[in-house]
Amino acid sequence: MDLKPIGDRVIVKQDEVSEKSAGGLYIASSSKEKPTSGVVLAVGDGKFSDNGQRLPMPVKVGDHVIYGKYGGTEVEVDGEKVIILRAEDIYAIKG
Amino acid sequence: MDLKPIGDRVIVKQDEVSEKSAGGLYIASSSKEKPTSGVVLAVGDGKFSDNGQRLPMPVKVGDHVIYGKYGGTEVEVDGEKVIILRAEDIYAIKG
Amino acid sequence: MDLKPIGDRVIVKQDEVSEKSAGGLYIASSSKEKPTSGVVLAVGDGKFSDNGQRLPMPVKVGDHVIYGKYGGTEVEVDGEKVIILRAEDIYAIKG
Amino acid sequence: MDLKPIGDRVIVKQDEVSEKSAGGLYIASSSKEKPTSGVVLAVGDGKFSDNGQRLPMPVKVGDHVIYGKYGGTEVEVDGEKVIILRAEDIYAIKG
Amino acid sequence: MDLKPIGDRVIVKQDEVSEKSAGGLYIASSSKEKPTSGVVLAVGDGKFSDNGQRLPMPVKVGDHVIYGKYGGTEVEVDGEKVIILRAEDIYAIKG
Amino acid sequence: MDLKPIGDRVIVKQDEVSEKSAGGLYIASSSKEKPTSGVVLAVGDGKFSDNGQRLPMPVKVGDHVIYGKYGGTEVEVDGEKVIILRAEDIYAIKG
Amino acid sequence: MDLKPIGDRVIVKQDEVSEKSAGGLYIASSSKEKPTSGVVLAVGDGKFSDNGQRLPMPVKVGDHVIYGKYGGTEVEVDGEKVIILRAEDIYAIKG
Repeated sequence: MDLKPIGDRVIVKQDEVSEKSAGGLYIASSSKEKPTSGVVLAVGDGKFSDNGQRLPMPVKVGDHVIYGKYGGTEVEVDGEKVIILRAEDIYAIKG
Repeated sequence: MDLKPIGDRVIVKQDEVSEKSAGGLYIASSSKEKPTSGVVLAVGDGKFSDNGQRLPMPVKVGDHVIYGKYGGTEVEVDGEKVIILRAEDIYAIKG
Repeated sequence: MDLKPIGDRVIVKQDEVSEKSAGGLYIASSSKEKPTSGVVLAVGDGKFSDNGQRLPMPVKVGDHVIYGKYGGTEVEVDGEKVIILRAEDIYAIKG
Repeated sequence: MDLKPIGDRVIVKQDEVSEKSAGGLYIASSSKEKPTSGVVLAVGDGKFSDNGQRLPMPVKVGDHVIYGKYGGTEVEVDGEKVIILRAEDIYAIKG
Repeated sequence: MDLKPIGDRVIVKQDEVSEKSAGGLYIASSSKEKPTSGVVLAVGDGKFSDNGQRLPMPVKVGDHVIYGKYGGTEVEVDGEKVIILRAEDIYAIKG
Repeated sequence: MDLKPIGDRVIVKQDEVSEKSAGGLYIASSSKEKPTSGVVLAVGDGKFSDNGQRLPMPVKVGDHVIYGKYGGTEVEVDGEKVIILRAEDIYAIKG
Repeated sequence: MDLKPIGDRVIVKQDEVSEKSAGGLYIASSSKEKPTSGVVLAVGDGKFSDNGQRLPMPVKVGDHVIYGKYGGTEVEVDGEKVIILRAEDIYAIKG
């Protein structure tokens, strides 16, 4: 993956859409924003706190994550479709 | 539970819906957001304050909590339905 | 009362609705949010300031307070109806 | 007055409504929020700045003030009608 | 002038409305908020920054200023009509 | 120019409207806010950061700048029409 | 390029619109804001954090970037059309 996310952004390869997604994770939501799962491909350097300190990113490359699609942007690089989203939009990491 | 919440998020197993929920806790609300009760399954590492300091989480695994469902997201992992919400959406802990 | 409020939340037992409430306190309001009175049953540990310092709570158990009902949530625990609200929603303490 | 305001709130006894209010102060406003005058009866301890420092209150008991009624709440204690408002809603002190 | 403004508020005596206002200053605006000119009669002590430090006021008594009327409030004291506004609403000082 | 801008405000003399403006700069915009060009006539002392520190102004008198007209206010002083805007509304300096 | 962006603004030369843009990067988006790609021509000095510290810019001249067009402004200088946008609107750098 030769895309470097800016700030607290993360690039994720979305799981194939299926009833049962990778890792036995099934997501059904009655809330306003439908969550999705995928694998982290690249991670930004983190954003700055109000006092100018760079904050650590909560995920790393290879993490299998659940995220909200609302803020994400789909991009295709060299034939591979990926999602760019903010760390804030990631809900949890599948252990 | 092999889901690790990000930041100040918490994973909760919602109580069975009944007139009297677990622990003799009954919730009736006339306000705009209906509160719910459940048990905490997993807790994030906490979010950062504006000066880059990680804040302690106000709940721990096993706590029986009352929370607002508004910001929560329902997820099913390995056949178990859970709610991912923010610590901010938790109102109180049943002692 | 075995409910522990989170952060800057407070649990209040609302006064019986009457023309003259407990303590000779009568509330009539022409403003958009109708204030109410009650007794504090439980108090959270306080919220954090932007620089990660926990702020003291302005009320204590037993205080007779006037508060705005807008942000409050009604909950029934072991047959007792109480209100969970934020310290911010409390206007004054009856001395 | 046995009401103690919380945070940066202030309790004011509104002047009798008349063309000329107490102190020769007449208020006519063409703006969206009609200002009013009154005397300060009680003052909160002040709110906290973002770095957890309590800020001094800009008025004291006995000050004759001009304020905007928008955020105020009318309350009657022991037969006396008063207004609870925030220090922020006070525009000026009559010298 | 015996009105003391609170915080970062300023009291201004508006110029007589004329094609050419005092000091040869003519204001014509095509923007949404019509600016006005006047003379500063009284100045508050200044508001606090987020870290609890009082900020200096950018104008002083006697300054001839241009300001936006949007946030201002008209008040009449002892027969004199004045405007109470925030320092933020003052655009410039006529030298 | 005898107008002193307050805070982070800047006074600009707008370029004559022409297909090609001063300095060979042509502005065409498909976005919601139409940018304009002009020369800086006066610069405020700068606004304060949240911790009470005055921030340096990014432009100086004589700079040829591109800015968004949205927040600007047109004022005429001694027969000269100028624009008062915030440093924030300036996009770039023509070198 | 003789345009110096202010604060955290960046000037970008947008890639020619084609199915396959420069560097084999193809962008298709189902989200509300369509991303675009281009090359960075000029970079501002960076904005200030809340405590008055200038933050480093996440891109440099020559970077091939993906950005959201929403906040950008198209400007033509000496016959060359460029986009002025904020660092915040840049999603990622093509490695």
